[in-house]
Amino acid sequence: MRLSQFFLPLLKENPSEAQIVSHRLMLRAGMIKQQAAGIYSWLPLGLRALDNVERIVAEELDEAGCVRVLMPTLQPTELWKESGRYDALGKEMLRFKDRAERELLYSPTNEEMIIDIFRSYVKSYKSLPLNLYQINWKFRDEVRPRFGVMRGREFLMKDGYSFHVDLDDAKREYFKMYDVYHKIFNRLGLTSIAVSADSGAIGGSLSHEFQVLAETGESQIYYDPRFDDVRSGKKKASGEEMRSWYAAADELHVTDKCPVPKDQLREARGIEVGHIFLLGRKYTDAMNIDVTGPAGALVRVEMATFGIGVSRLVGAIIEASHDDNGIIWPDAVAPFKVGLINLRVGDRKCDDACTLIYDTLCAKQVDTLYDDTDERPGGKFASMDLIGAPWQITVGPKGVERDVVEMKHRKTGEKQELSVESALAKILG
Amino acid sequence: MRLSQFFLPLLKENPSEAQIVSHRLMLRAGMIKQQAAGIYSWLPLGLRALDNVERIVAEELDEAGCVRVLMPTLQPTELWKESGRYDALGKEMLRFKDRAERELLYSPTNEEMIIDIFRSYVKSYKSLPLNLYQINWKFRDEVRPRFGVMRGREFLMKDGYSFHVDLDDAKREYFKMYDVYHKIFNRLGLTSIAVSADSGAIGGSLSHEFQVLAETGESQIYYDPRFDDVRSGKKKASGEEMRSWYAAADELHVTDKCPVPKDQLREARGIEVGHIFLLGRKYTDAMNIDVTGPAGALVRVEMATFGIGVSRLVGAIIEASHDDNGIIWPDAVAPFKVGLINLRVGDRKCDDACTLIYDTLCAKQVDTLYDDTDERPGGKFASMDLIGAPWQITVGPKGVERDVVEMKHRKTGEKQELSVESALAKILG
Repeated sequence: MRLSQFFLPLLKENPSEAQIVSHRLMLRAGMIKQQAAGIYSWLPLGLRALDNVERIVAEELDEAGCVRVLMPTLQPTELWKESGRYDALGKEMLRFKDRAERELLYSPTNEEMIIDIFRSYVKSYKSLPLNLYQINWKFRDEVRPRFGVMRGREFLMKDGYSFHVDLDDAKREYFKMYDVYHKIFNRLGLTSIAVSADSGAIGGSLSHEFQVLAETGESQIYYDPRFDDVRSGKKKASGEEMRSWYAAADELHVTDKCPVPKDQLREARGIEVGHIFLLGRKYTDAMNIDVTGPAGALVRVEMATFGIGVSRLVGAIIEASHDDNGIIWPDAVAPFKVGLINLRVGDRKCDDACTLIYDTLCAKQVDTLYDDTDERPGGKFASMDLIGAPWQITVGPKGVERDVVEMKHRKTGEKQELSVESALAKILG
Repeated sequence: MRLSQFFLPLLKENPSEAQIVSHRLMLRAGMIKQQAAGIYSWLPLGLRALDNVERIVAEELDEAGCVRVLMPTLQPTELWKESGRYDALGKEMLRFKDRAERELLYSPTNEEMIIDIFRSYVKSYKSLPLNLYQINWKFRDEVRPRFGVMRGREFLMKDGYSFHVDLDDAKREYFKMYDVYHKIFNRLGLTSIAVSADSGAIGGSLSHEFQVLAETGESQIYYDPRFDDVRSGKKKASGEEMRSWYAAADELHVTDKCPVPKDQLREARGIEVGHIFLLGRKYTDAMNIDVTGPAGALVRVEMATFGIGVSRLVGAIIEASHDDNGIIWPDAVAPFKVGLINLRVGDRKCDDACTLIYDTLCAKQVDTLYDDTDERPGGKFASMDLIGAPWQITVGPKGVERDVVEMKHRKTGEKQELSVESALAKILG
C-alpha cells in the first residue's frame, strides 16, 4: 500500500481521554475512532490488525476441527426466556422492540442460539462431538465503558460451543481447547497464563481464564512461579503440566488454601483475553436437549464453551508490546510487516529503488506500507515507529549512490546498511 | 473438509415457507437457518459461500484503490439529526435506548458516519480523492421480510463512499466504480445490467442499479437488446458503451420517451445486487463539509456512494444458477470446489485413493468436501448435486480395480472415467 493512497490519520498529540497506553496508541496511530461511549469505528490500520487476529484465531480453530458458523447480532428473546437467562443478564443485555413490537436483543453471547441450531438438526450421538464457533460482534451495555477497545460495548468476540454425549468427552474437548488457546495466543506473540476462574453468568463446573500479564490489567491473579519460567522462555511445559500448577483469579484465590508457599507465590495484574467453561448440562437441562445414545435411549447432551476477545486482543497485544515511540507489532499481527521510507520522493534513483523493493514485496504478498509522501524524514521515521511495522527499510539519496538501503528492526532498534537484494532476502527469508 | 467432521444439515423435504428457489435451496442445503423474521444464522456451507462473495468484492475494491474501514453496527442518532435523515428513514430504521437512556440506532446505511470520520481527519484537497468502504451487517426493519436472504432484515452489505474536490472528479470515480461493479459481478459468475434508477432515500443526481435477470426479481426493468448480446457472450462492450445504451428501472421508464423502438425493447424481472449514486453535495451541504482547496479557500466536498448486497448476492447467484437437483455454484463462489465421494468407505483401495486425492487437493488449497460417511451411494450423489460442488470425483470399488475414478462436471452433467492423476490434473489445471 502506498501511503499517498492509504488513509492513515495519525494524531500528533496524546489524546486526553485515553487512560491506558493501548488506547492512546490506537488513537494516535489512526487505528480507531470513537463513535459513542464504548463504540468504535476501525480505521484502515486498525482493521488490518483486527483482521489478522481474527484470521489466526480462525485458522487454529479450523485446524483443531472446529466448524465455523455465523449467528445474527439480533435475536428474539424467547430462547433466553427458555434458558432462564433473560432476567439474569440484566441491563448489560440491550433489549428493544422492532416495528411489529416483537422484542429483540443484541447478542451478548450465544449459548441459547447455538443450542437452538443444534436441536434443529442433531438427533443422534453419531453426530457428536461437534464443536461450532463463530466470530461476530457482540454488545454488552457496560456501565462504564473505558480503555478503548479493551472494554468496549460493541466488541468482536470468538464464541465456540461444543456438544458431547458424556461429560468425559466434554472434558477431553475442554482440555484440548485449553492447549489450542495457548497455541493461538503464542502465534499472536503473547504469553498467556490460564487461571482457574469463577464461571459467573455463563455457568458450569470448571472454568479457566486466559490472562496476558500487564500492569493495566483489570484482574488480579496469583500463580505458581514456574509460569514465569515458561513466559520468559526458560522452561517449556505441556498444557497438562501447566494445568497442574496453581493459578487463580482473585475471586477464587484463598490465601490459606493456596498450595504455593507464600514467599514463592507470584501476583500480577492480567488482561483476560480468553475464557473457557465446562458447562456440563447447565443449558441442556434448561432447554431439554437430548440425542439418541448408542443404546437407543435418549441421552442428555453435555457442553463446553470457549470465548476469545478478538477486538480486545488488539489492545492487549499493544499493552504487551510497545515502547515510547509507539507500537511494536508481533510479525503475525502487524498491519504492515514492512515500512518502506523514501527519503527523497522525486529523486529518480530513490524512486526506482523504492519501486523495485515495493513491487518485489507486493508480488510475494508481504504487506508493505510505502511512504511515498513529501513529509520530512523526521516525520516519516516517527510515523513508522508509531505504527510499528516490524521491519523498516529506508531509501535515501546518499545510500542509493552506494547501492545500499538502511534496514531497521523495530523491536530491537538494530540498524544495518544492506544492498537492496540483501534487504529483500532478509525479509523474504 | 471431511463430511464426517463437518456440519451439513441437509433437508430432505422442501421447506414450505420458501417461495423462491434460492430460499428453498439454501434451506435444503443447510446453508442458513431462520432465527426470526428476516434474521438468519449462516450455517457452515452458507458461510463459506458468503465469505467467498465478500472476499471477491473486497479484492476488486482494494485493487481499484478503495480503502477498507469498519464502522460499528450501532450508532448515536445525533449524526442523523444533523443530516436531516433521522425522520426520513421512518420505521425501517431500528432505534432504541441504551441503559443510560441515550438513543442508538442499528445502521441501515452509513453516509452520516463516514462523513463524521472524514471531517475528523481530512482537512485539505491534497487528501482527495478518497474512497472508503466497509463490509458489515446492516439492519432495515422491513414490513414484510421474505425470500430468505434476498430480503432479510439483518443483511451483509458493502457500502463505499468517495470524496472529491469537484463534481467532475466525483463523476470520474462514479464511472470507474460502474466498471468495477461489472467486473465484480462477472467474477461472481453473474451477468449484470446497470439500469438508470431513482436515487430514492439516498439521494443525488445520478444513479444506477445493477440488476441480475431472474424471473423472481422484484424490479421490472426495460433495456436495449444489445445488453442481451453482451449477456449471452455474442458481443463485447466497454462500460462506456453500455452506459450509452438505454436501460431503466420501472420507476424511470416512460414509454413515450424511450429511445429504443417498442418492438425491440426488452423487458425482464431483475434482482438488484448493487446500487451506485452520484451524491454531489447532498450530504456535505447538510453537514457543512469543506476542505481547503488548491487556492487556499474552502471548497465544499462532492461525494458518490456505492453499495453491494453481499448476503443478497448469495441468493441471487443461486437464482441465476441452479437446476432441479440443486445449486450449481460458479467456481469462484463455490463453498467447495470439489466434492469427493467414497462409494465404499472401509474398502482399503477406495479409502487409499480418496485419501490420496483429498490430501493432494488440500495441499494445493483446493476446497474439497470428502464424503467419507456410510450413507448409500444414491444419497451421496444427491447431496453433492444439492450443494453444487462444480466438480465431483467418485471413487468406487469397481473403478479402483481398473485404476479409474469418475469425474463429473456439475454444470454440464458430463461424466468421464479418468485415472486419479488425470482427474487431479484437470482440477489443478
